[in-house]
Amino acid sequence: MAVYTDISDEELRAFLAGFDLGEALSFKGIAEGVENSNFLLETEAGRFILTVYEKRVRAEELPYFLGLMGWLADQGFPSARPVLDRSGQVLQSLRGKPAALAQFLPGLSVRRPSVAQCREAGEGLAWLHQAGQGYGGRRANDLGQSAWGEFFAPLGPAAEGLKPGLASVVAADLDHLASHWPQDLPSGVIHADFFPDNVFFREGRFSAAIDFYFACDDFLAYDLAVTLNAWCFEPSGDFNVTAGKALLAGYEKRRPLSRAERAALPVLAHGAAMRFFLTRLADWGPVPDGALVRPKDPLEYERKLAVHRAGLSILSDPA
Amino acid sequence: MAVYTDISDEELRAFLAGFDLGEALSFKGIAEGVENSNFLLETEAGRFILTVYEKRVRAEELPYFLGLMGWLADQGFPSARPVLDRSGQVLQSLRGKPAALAQFLPGLSVRRPSVAQCREAGEGLAWLHQAGQGYGGRRANDLGQSAWGEFFAPLGPAAEGLKPGLASVVAADLDHLASHWPQDLPSGVIHADFFPDNVFFREGRFSAAIDFYFACDDFLAYDLAVTLNAWCFEPSGDFNVTAGKALLAGYEKRRPLSRAERAALPVLAHGAAMRFFLTRLADWGPVPDGALVRPKDPLEYERKLAVHRAGLSILSDPA
Repeated sequence: MAVYTDISDEELRAFLAGFDLGEALSFKGIAEGVENSNFLLETEAGRFILTVYEKRVRAEELPYFLGLMGWLADQGFPSARPVLDRSGQVLQSLRGKPAALAQFLPGLSVRRPSVAQCREAGEGLAWLHQAGQGYGGRRANDLGQSAWGEFFAPLGPAAEGLKPGLASVVAADLDHLASHWPQDLPSGVIHADFFPDNVFFREGRFSAAIDFYFACDDFLAYDLAVTLNAWCFEPSGDFNVTAGKALLAGYEKRRPLSRAERAALPVLAHGAAMRFFLTRLADWGPVPDGALVRPKDPLEYERKLAVHRAGLSILSDPA
Repeated sequence: MAVYTDISDEELRAFLAGFDLGEALSFKGIAEGVENSNFLLETEAGRFILTVYEKRVRAEELPYFLGLMGWLADQGFPSARPVLDRSGQVLQSLRGKPAALAQFLPGLSVRRPSVAQCREAGEGLAWLHQAGQGYGGRRANDLGQSAWGEFFAPLGPAAEGLKPGLASVVAADLDHLASHWPQDLPSGVIHADFFPDNVFFREGRFSAAIDFYFACDDFLAYDLAVTLNAWCFEPSGDFNVTAGKALLAGYEKRRPLSRAERAALPVLAHGAAMRFFLTRLADWGPVPDGALVRPKDPLEYERKLAVHRAGLSILSDPA
């Protein structure tokens, strides 16, 4: 949600010369995406999103992400299809940074999802999981359960600074997660960041998913747990059982969970809260120049950790 | 060029309920405009720019600016037409701030104008001056020549901090401008901020002007002087005579200058450099939270002041 890289009309013209998209008709930096610069570009051929990848995205991983977006679109899933240049390439360079052009997808994200929107989001996620089957790319989840211990190692003082006593609570959580983490659940491509700002709706229906730059291989039910945490908590910090049931029901409409997946949901949700708590804790520092957003409050996920530590029976009970 | 105000999907829906524009199809915060928050909104009825006015714009002046945009569009000039709500009102409220919706205009601004684009810009400005004739709104130029002395009064130390000795040079400039400022030149509505980022082109031709939030009544040739300063200086600080002649020729294609206007251009250009030097000097401080831009360097206009202090004969010579 930022524009870190400034593209001039001349740079845009030179960039577009590599494509068969005609002349640029309008070009606006937009406040969207996690840590990349995004522009809404209209040419004689239509509307596109130009993304310039900033330092956090590893260039060597872009073929995986862009390939996935194209694969999903080929399966009929509403993901922005990357646009090939005249030589058939997706990956471009702008100002020395990697860049890519993708279809523009209409739709609006929601701030406070309704129960009906949670149901739609659940169904959209299951659709994504089905559409991702058969994708040839592989990417390990570098923010998955096996990485959390090492990730937290230097963050003890930060956790204590946030809330005295928190470091040892988190360390105990990490031990619990390590010993209870499931070993074999159905796996595949997961979005891994299926938050409300990455999901579009039209007329109340799920219409698209964007921002696949955390996608990786992991348990599908872990992605569902990330999504439950992102969509079904009230601002007060309470889990909204009605919203959670709706999201699960929407998911299962397309992809019913196995008994083992259902049984694992509480620990997966506890771990999903840990993953976002840890990165928010690490990011809880100065705001980068040019950013439109502040770091997200790690305490939001500290509260979610506490909820899952206590246990939410609704997650493992059959709907 | 910022998004200071964050609008949720619910706030947008409530806002759009007052209009006959159908449902929102997409909504993006865009990096455009001076100090307001701007959003590109697509609805079933077309594309629009939603502007939320931040603290620098005085709400009581908005009817003048929005009325002017509508007036210019009525005259066939390519200015975004404000959109009326169901009750015939333009001015709205969002999050307790004034807001307005206007037509979306395609087009791209240029970073480093070519000579041909300077010619087009000159012609576009003359067109604006002609189209503004007859507009019923009145607004004094609160950043005009009579205001500069008082504006500079507290800024001596800032000028000295920028460049030792500068305060007395500027004070002498202000005396010179006060005693040489023309008394009666053709007046009317001026844009007052006709910089390259406020001018759109399509296929190399002037296609639109945006951001009328400095518009006011003043000498038309003063607006031309502001525009010459904004478009015809090289990054080195030198005035590009070829570009300047082209801009003047473009202007005069539609609206030939009188002998008095031509004779006054050097002092008007000197004053136009002073006006932007002064506001940049005053703004040369901490960056506001959420801003996408840094304050503009006052030294750019200090150099332009020096060029005009020395005198540019090309400005007063017949083309």
